[in-house]
Amino acid sequence: MKKYLDTSLTPLERAEALTDEMTVEEQAGQLRYDSPAVPRLGIPAYNWWNEGLHGLARSGTAAMFPQAIGLAAMFDTGLVEKAGEITSAETRAKYNAYAKYGDRDIYKGLTLWAPNINIFRDPRWGRGHETYGEDPFLTAENGKAYVKGLQGSGKVMRAAACAKHFAVHSGPEALRHKFNAEVSSKDMEETYLPAFEALIKEAHVEGVMGAYNRVNGEAACASSFLMDKLREWGFDGYFVSDCWAISDFHEHHGLTKNAVESAAMALTAGCDVNCGCTYANVLAALDEGLVTKEDIRKACVHLMRTRIRLGMFDEKTEYDDIPYEIVSCREHKDISLECAERSMVLLKNNGILPLNENEMKTIAVIGPNSNSRTALEGNYNGTADRYVTFLEGIQERFSGRVIFAEGCHLYKDRSSGLAKAGDRYAEAMAAAECADVIILCVGLDATIEGEEGDTGNEFSSCDKKDIRLPESQRILIDRIMKTGKPVVVVCAAGSSVNTECSPDALIHTWYPGSEGGTALAEILFGDVSPSGKLPVTFYENSELLPEFTDYSMKNRTYRYAENNVLYPFGYGLTYGDIVCTSVRYKDGIADVTAENRGQTATEDVIELYIKDYSENAVLNVSLCGFRRVRLEAGEKIIVSIPVSERAFTAVDQNGIRKRCGSRFTLYAGTHQPDEISNKLCKTLCAETDIAF
Amino acid sequence: MKKYLDTSLTPLERAEALTDEMTVEEQAGQLRYDSPAVPRLGIPAYNWWNEGLHGLARSGTAAMFPQAIGLAAMFDTGLVEKAGEITSAETRAKYNAYAKYGDRDIYKGLTLWAPNINIFRDPRWGRGHETYGEDPFLTAENGKAYVKGLQGSGKVMRAAACAKHFAVHSGPEALRHKFNAEVSSKDMEETYLPAFEALIKEAHVEGVMGAYNRVNGEAACASSFLMDKLREWGFDGYFVSDCWAISDFHEHHGLTKNAVESAAMALTAGCDVNCGCTYANVLAALDEGLVTKEDIRKACVHLMRTRIRLGMFDEKTEYDDIPYEIVSCREHKDISLECAERSMVLLKNNGILPLNENEMKTIAVIGPNSNSRTALEGNYNGTADRYVTFLEGIQERFSGRVIFAEGCHLYKDRSSGLAKAGDRYAEAMAAAECADVIILCVGLDATIEGEEGDTGNEFSSCDKKDIRLPESQRILIDRIMKTGKPVVVVCAAGSSVNTECSPDALIHTWYPGSEGGTALAEILFGDVSPSGKLPVTFYENSELLPEFTDYSMKNRTYRYAENNVLYPFGYGLTYGDIVCTSVRYKDGIADVTAENRGQTATEDVIELYIKDYSENAVLNVSLCGFRRVRLEAGEKIIVSIPVSERAFTAVDQNGIRKRCGSRFTLYAGTHQPDEISNKLCKTLCAETDIAF
Repeated sequence: MKKYLDTSLTPLERAEALTDEMTVEEQAGQLRYDSPAVPRLGIPAYNWWNEGLHGLARSGTAAMFPQAIGLAAMFDTGLVEKAGEITSAETRAKYNAYAKYGDRDIYKGLTLWAPNINIFRDPRWGRGHETYGEDPFLTAENGKAYVKGLQGSGKVMRAAACAKHFAVHSGPEALRHKFNAEVSSKDMEETYLPAFEALIKEAHVEGVMGAYNRVNGEAACASSFLMDKLREWGFDGYFVSDCWAISDFHEHHGLTKNAVESAAMALTAGCDVNCGCTYANVLAALDEGLVTKEDIRKACVHLMRTRIRLGMFDEKTEYDDIPYEIVSCREHKDISLECAERSMVLLKNNGILPLNENEMKTIAVIGPNSNSRTALEGNYNGTADRYVTFLEGIQERFSGRVIFAEGCHLYKDRSSGLAKAGDRYAEAMAAAECADVIILCVGLDATIEGEEGDTGNEFSSCDKKDIRLPESQRILIDRIMKTGKPVVVVCAAGSSVNTECSPDALIHTWYPGSEGGTALAEILFGDVSPSGKLPVTFYENSELLPEFTDYSMKNRTYRYAENNVLYPFGYGLTYGDIVCTSVRYKDGIADVTAENRGQTATEDVIELYIKDYSENAVLNVSLCGFRRVRLEAGEKIIVSIPVSERAFTAVDQNGIRKRCGSRFTLYAGTHQPDEISNKLCKTLCAETDIAF
Repeated sequence: MKKYLDTSLTPLERAEALTDEMTVEEQAGQLRYDSPAVPRLGIPAYNWWNEGLHGLARSGTAAMFPQAIGLAAMFDTGLVEKAGEITSAETRAKYNAYAKYGDRDIYKGLTLWAPNINIFRDPRWGRGHETYGEDPFLTAENGKAYVKGLQGSGKVMRAAACAKHFAVHSGPEALRHKFNAEVSSKDMEETYLPAFEALIKEAHVEGVMGAYNRVNGEAACASSFLMDKLREWGFDGYFVSDCWAISDFHEHHGLTKNAVESAAMALTAGCDVNCGCTYANVLAALDEGLVTKEDIRKACVHLMRTRIRLGMFDEKTEYDDIPYEIVSCREHKDISLECAERSMVLLKNNGILPLNENEMKTIAVIGPNSNSRTALEGNYNGTADRYVTFLEGIQERFSGRVIFAEGCHLYKDRSSGLAKAGDRYAEAMAAAECADVIILCVGLDATIEGEEGDTGNEFSSCDKKDIRLPESQRILIDRIMKTGKPVVVVCAAGSSVNTECSPDALIHTWYPGSEGGTALAEILFGDVSPSGKLPVTFYENSELLPEFTDYSMKNRTYRYAENNVLYPFGYGLTYGDIVCTSVRYKDGIADVTAENRGQTATEDVIELYIKDYSENAVLNVSLCGFRRVRLEAGEKIIVSIPVSERAFTAVDQNGIRKRCGSRFTLYAGTHQPDEISNKLCKTLCAETDIAF
């Protein structure tokens, strides 16, 4: 038996054996993302590029979960892990089926380039909705859960996850191929690195993808600083460049003179596989003495190790018999629905919600996102075999009359090219007039907040110019509000939006996945109490934010915000009344007493924040734990939530993390302990002081 | 009281009085499609351009019926009239509501530019699906019914219909602004004019729109030949140019030197209102002596007459209180569903249909039109407040597992830009493997068969290159057929398509409107028996057709076809067995004896064709009557169908229509009496000879 087939050896040993059977030319070929077959060694062709941010993506039909930012809003790592499990099970089912037909092309492999654990540091970033929000702890917890779900705990990995984009990457999209993100040592350790460190150390994420931009002058895909961090953390998977990022070295960053030098720079730094075509020059770089055979061999070993861990050279794996029928099956969609229910955030409610359906005959559903499948999808999405739009969800749930009006185009000033601006407002007013209540479905979608190259919005940009809705929608909202009718604003967007209005209720749905409309209707009519929490700060005004290109965390995110907060991180209302009455801390465990003072069983999230009074601490508080709970009416429980040693550390100006303080306050509540949220929630957090 | 407000006068008298109150400048302004207000006379602004081909179009939410070609396939003028009634009622409801908000812009008026009664003479024409098919009689019957439905029979017109595009217009789209359609006198009278004549004489259609192209050298919008025909038929409505057609006179047709001359040519010929902006030059033409004040006055009188007939200068009309709630209400959608049920044509069935749901656990729904809303819409459509795609219809109806795969892009060779060609076939095969039966949803949509300027398909054309499906779909069908699994092909297209395969069953759905998926599922599972009939010949091969630019009817349509017939005009199977056993003719009435030899109540269409043995007759037979019937199992009835005098006329080479023959055969059956359909149907038509 060939040594690399011997399953009693370690993946590394097998990978080395396999690599050493190859010529250097064959090894170099394997460093391409679309790596060719080596028939004499029984190596089939393999395309490393597959996507699965919230369900298997770009590979046809698949279960579609809420976009990552919505998954983060659940504050529920168990369900995030479940979404990851389903995603990778469907990936396997498709991989098995496709391979049977010899299709080993892009979006058909087992290496998923998810999750995106960048910090959503600025609400204008178009790709922010791919992330788990603005907080390093929340990002790490969700990222680890998703990686665990994707990779599984079997004899071989079910699928390989990939933490991206290492390590500092959050716009501007338009500049990403030439941008240099300048980051202080303190911000690096305090904000940008922790999630990557956690995914590598604790979740053993198999892949890491480098970003497009430079980080403090070095290309992220060839940064000695960042590669050293990976080594320090014991990373032993594969490193991939972002797509065509290595050609940016010479084309945009001016770091090298040509493709041969760029290939050499990336390879010698530790980038194993090139999404793009620059590694076509690896052999030329070898000829020119810019790389060694060992550089090539090492990268190839890393890649073969990942493939071996995935069981690709085993005769049989535990996943070979996953039936194709599991793809987008009812059970998977039920989990997607559960995610959508838990992800939506109720930001305002004057008591109109839940709707009393006995008191209403006619509901008007108005707005450009009412019947939009795109608004359910986010980006990096698959194709659902059934989309339930907001309108459809309401139509299914409500037995009375539902009247629909588009209201306006998502961002253009008219829906028909030949019409005058505002050509759908009269229809919206007519629909509103008929209604007992108006559900106004506004927001964005990935065609106007998204990735460079994918989107074209009114500003020819992928990022948002500000955090307001497009003007077409602002006018629509204004007109509808002026009717004086009861209005529930439903905002589908992947980021902080100030709707600049004062409706009776406001629900932020993110991009809620295929079952979004069902979840919304359940919440509107009280079948389900909303329980999502903001994973990002909702700002008042983006003009008060720092420059978008400024990567300093000063006055960004809830940990550093000095003003400008509309709804705080962690905020979200329910229909119930769960209150944390006390918190006690001992030996790494916080015991929180919570009781449901409301009349019905309710889900909510208990959030733990720590305030560090030391000099190096962040300005405000930091999330250090959370637990989703469900309490029956009148029920009182004590919830034990671990608080790690790390929660008591702070980072100095040199980027050194250690315990600096001796005095802390630990807060427990269903929201963040700041003035704004207390005012909004009318309930205080419990707190306890801790001294060491 | 101003004379033009006096409802005791005729509309013409009132229009003359109103026009005579205007200055010539004001009159000239009224000839624009976007005519301005004349406040001193109480004339509000009015935009003549509105659309309502199969439901109110381009004006937001509206009931959406099957595309016109599908309505024609019902062979059911009562239901066509009902669709027209609903369309105009919704038009009124919206007009009332919009006017309240001062919105009198495009797509908001009462003058609908429908129906399109051009003859679908060549299956390659992209806009053919807007028509009622290839037969002048069927076109006229449907056109009259739709006009009657739109205009109503009230004191004032509910909405004004418009017969377009007068009179010879059927592609090529790419050439339409410069093309000269050359038509013989015989074809003109035998094929191109009859529907227009019928709509004017019998349905009193209020508007006529001229075509873009020239007809025998004259611009269709300024043709003395065509305008004489209108006068001969007693047309007393308004004439509108197709949009920007008058500027084609000088820009493309070379008929005039400039816009002033073009405006003068159209106006003096009798074109009252200009869709476009060339009539901005009417006053210049007056200055240059190319038109008279009386020319301007006359056109203005025609337009005011139409507006007066619509009640626009009455204090109150019977339609002012139509509630907005009727728009897209359940009752309207139920009629749309009924239309969809009756429009779908079962072309082949080896007994697999209706599906026996007890025998199947899993259905695979595969193909690019499976979950497409666009495939339900056709063109000149409104926005449904609920779309039931084919996939959704099947999911709702079938209690077992439904697996969906896109199969391929509608026409591109891949769905993902970065993938290799055929990137969805493996998924389709995987889905097929799971299935007990495959529903393969193929076809076209208005993005690849449509109007010049609206569509961009693989051939950068709006017309079809041939009558095959795009290559991506041909490959998909081939692969799926090779699985050997039971396959039902569902083809959504607005025209003759040869799917080039031999499935167990083949259903042609046209573009079936918002309820299309429900109707399809009902038919698949036998809740409803299919009963649609082809309103066009389905050809074997478009290469055997005459040149697309050749407007001679030789070897075109069932009346002149010499070969090349795949499925004949009038063809369509049911699940029942209704047979015409005899036909007797007397005094303009055909008494047809029909019986249901099947086991269940069934709908079908009794078709009457006449064969004229005279020299001037058409080559084959001509449809001269039809009646949709529903018979209980075993029921036998005698149906009396009128046959007009006109059915016994023929047209000579000079275009003179008269009774030429003395010997005729009248056929009655549920299909056309030709060899092919008899072979396909296994039942003969009843026939009787008639001699005068």
